[in-house]
Amino acid sequence: MKLNKKNYNLWNKAKKIIPGGNVFISKRPQFYLPKYWPTYYSKSKGCEIWDLDKKKYYDFSLMGVGTNILGYSNYKIDKEVKKIIDKGNMSTLNCYEEVKLSESLLKINKWADMVKFARSGAEANSIAIRIARASTKKQQIAVCGYHGWHDWYLAANIKKKNKLSKLLLKGLSTDGVPNDLKNSIHTFIYNDFNYLKKLVDKNPKIGIIKMEVERNQKPKKNFLNKVRNLCTKKNIILIFDECTSGFRETFGGLHKKYKINPDIAIFGKALGNGYAITAVVGKREIMENAKNTFISSTFWTERVGFTAGLYCLKYMEQYKSWDQISLIGKYIKKEWKKIFTKYDLDAEIVGLESIPTYYFRNYHSERVTYISQEMLKKKILTSNTIFVSLAHTKNHIKNYLKNFEEVIEKLSKIEKSGMKIKNKLLGPIKAETFQRLN
Amino acid sequence: MKLNKKNYNLWNKAKKIIPGGNVFISKRPQFYLPKYWPTYYSKSKGCEIWDLDKKKYYDFSLMGVGTNILGYSNYKIDKEVKKIIDKGNMSTLNCYEEVKLSESLLKINKWADMVKFARSGAEANSIAIRIARASTKKQQIAVCGYHGWHDWYLAANIKKKNKLSKLLLKGLSTDGVPNDLKNSIHTFIYNDFNYLKKLVDKNPKIGIIKMEVERNQKPKKNFLNKVRNLCTKKNIILIFDECTSGFRETFGGLHKKYKINPDIAIFGKALGNGYAITAVVGKREIMENAKNTFISSTFWTERVGFTAGLYCLKYMEQYKSWDQISLIGKYIKKEWKKIFTKYDLDAEIVGLESIPTYYFRNYHSERVTYISQEMLKKKILTSNTIFVSLAHTKNHIKNYLKNFEEVIEKLSKIEKSGMKIKNKLLGPIKAETFQRLN
Repeated sequence: MKLNKKNYNLWNKAKKIIPGGNVFISKRPQFYLPKYWPTYYSKSKGCEIWDLDKKKYYDFSLMGVGTNILGYSNYKIDKEVKKIIDKGNMSTLNCYEEVKLSESLLKINKWADMVKFARSGAEANSIAIRIARASTKKQQIAVCGYHGWHDWYLAANIKKKNKLSKLLLKGLSTDGVPNDLKNSIHTFIYNDFNYLKKLVDKNPKIGIIKMEVERNQKPKKNFLNKVRNLCTKKNIILIFDECTSGFRETFGGLHKKYKINPDIAIFGKALGNGYAITAVVGKREIMENAKNTFISSTFWTERVGFTAGLYCLKYMEQYKSWDQISLIGKYIKKEWKKIFTKYDLDAEIVGLESIPTYYFRNYHSERVTYISQEMLKKKILTSNTIFVSLAHTKNHIKNYLKNFEEVIEKLSKIEKSGMKIKNKLLGPIKAETFQRLN
Repeated sequence: MKLNKKNYNLWNKAKKIIPGGNVFISKRPQFYLPKYWPTYYSKSKGCEIWDLDKKKYYDFSLMGVGTNILGYSNYKIDKEVKKIIDKGNMSTLNCYEEVKLSESLLKINKWADMVKFARSGAEANSIAIRIARASTKKQQIAVCGYHGWHDWYLAANIKKKNKLSKLLLKGLSTDGVPNDLKNSIHTFIYNDFNYLKKLVDKNPKIGIIKMEVERNQKPKKNFLNKVRNLCTKKNIILIFDECTSGFRETFGGLHKKYKINPDIAIFGKALGNGYAITAVVGKREIMENAKNTFISSTFWTERVGFTAGLYCLKYMEQYKSWDQISLIGKYIKKEWKKIFTKYDLDAEIVGLESIPTYYFRNYHSERVTYISQEMLKKKILTSNTIFVSLAHTKNHIKNYLKNFEEVIEKLSKIEKSGMKIKNKLLGPIKAETFQRLN
């Protein structure tokens, strides 16, 4: 495999003028295939991506990190967005699509009464925290999950200056986060209800619990129900961050599957099929406190995001996309299991059905780097996680699995011959992103 | 004038399901013409806006609150945006437009070396503060201006619980902002260098000064130069928030006009001609500290914002739009002065040349409400501030001024007859938004 100099040089240039090379950590090449990852695209359509040399790849990796359940450049959504651009995407007046999208979101969140919009998930998380804090005298937060880059959240990593603290959200550094916030936030581990209960008992100022409904493990022993009851009993506001999980297993939040209603839920990523739109949905008695604080941004009024959200909801509902992508993901998980068993590879398969993920118990990073490298030769972009979309057709999946098995067979042969897989890498081993709590 | 029930009812419905009725305070009808403001648009083009009944108005008010220097729905920008949508606006890989836009911004900010992007001005402000704080051990901030809704900033209003505190940034409430931050931020008044110097001397932990270059008053007695020298001498990071002032008097920041370079500058609003894109531009030794903290969001990678930014820069440069809008604004200020003098109205005229603004020394709110009401009958949306754009042609301006003079003449006659102008209002007097420091 030859180094693609155009991509490689552009990335090196980018690193000189953009801190870290780009705005979003999960799209940096070092987390996939250092040096050889294509890094830049010129075109994307369905689950296909063209690099700067117009070489085509099939995306069996992050699909925009979960943004495009209906596939890249979805014709129906894009048509509506372009119509709105022709009508004008901005003005001194408001666009009624903001009200329409609110109504659509309330229709699928019957427990909620009000909606507030933003343009990034981290913003929406900060809005939810501000509104929750404006609604209670108990200002401390307990979190379990990934909730963005803002001060209120990263403060979780300040407290213990010893190395253990870094285990909380490994890799999330706190440089520049005000030290004053060190006592404002606590962390807990998913499925450990006793720990959470003790934490809340010991810290009567905890007024907010914020978590992802599920990431890499399923709730056990009625965990979510217990958290909900604890919040209700202790008058704690429960916030579910559904940025990643939303629209992947139900038409809305994953909490619908478990029949546990939060007080506030946050949606992002999949909501606009690749266009920037995020939402905070909540109960009236809480959301109305937004009026007693100041939360406002010019660009939140832009019309493309609302429009994309409206039509994305329409077509997700029409196709029941959450069922389809879950079926596909389940099938991929089943096939992975067969392949790993066949070639004696000890791997754990986790993740939501539509976000299948595997972890090797040994040599994880070097094996995944090798797989990314060999799959790239077969024009498939992949790592150990797939965000499944409707654009992944039967043929795409068949092609992916055939090639994946070939690569695993090769990997297995190399290892069985006593050779180390890292010696087969053309570049460095991939880096690991930060580690989440659950 | 008949009440437009469609607009009025939609706004009332919106207030029930969206806290405050919409996402952005400056687009709420109560700040213009309660009850009668059209509130919603269906179409916008140039400086024209159509309401939900397709009734056309001329926008001599906020032009998207400063977002659209090239006019609404600018054909050239929109064409490029639609092309990019056809190529795919999202993917697992990065778009090279991020690198290109960085290069363009560095070309016009020779003092800067690196760029980081976001999608709202408040986000960009928070990024700048995080990076600055990651670059210095002195974590306290001194501010003078409006810098968004995040905790780090609103904390300025926490400290004094007596009513005086509310004067700092009048109307910016601190409900939900962590009390822990109360000592992290100080405020100073524009043009009062002695106060700032004393503040910095008294608080050796101030490591960051953040301000708007100019809002409603011009810098006096070498103010900006003195601030710059103070920062350099005391090793304080100087951040200019150019979200509102950027591209209005120069091709870039207003700081270019005064030949004072900050360490970090923030751009927003006008940068994407109505599409959401904001940027933090800064010196290498500071910006590189972004790597030691965590700042990342999925939707910051979306391609429309970068593309709009690129072409907006191209066409602003080609048209020298900052010169043109300044000329127009200057002319409007001159004509206002003539009209106010002719009809004996005591008004102060302030603002950047391209953001002409007037304040009546007496009965300000009720007079402006009356003006908005009467101008609306003439199909002109206006208040006491105009964000001038290239779409405001000679004929538009002539028409605006003719109608404005007629309304002022009427207002003057009513007042001279001894009647109170508020008795001529069909609805309530407009509310005032929050008051800025400078």
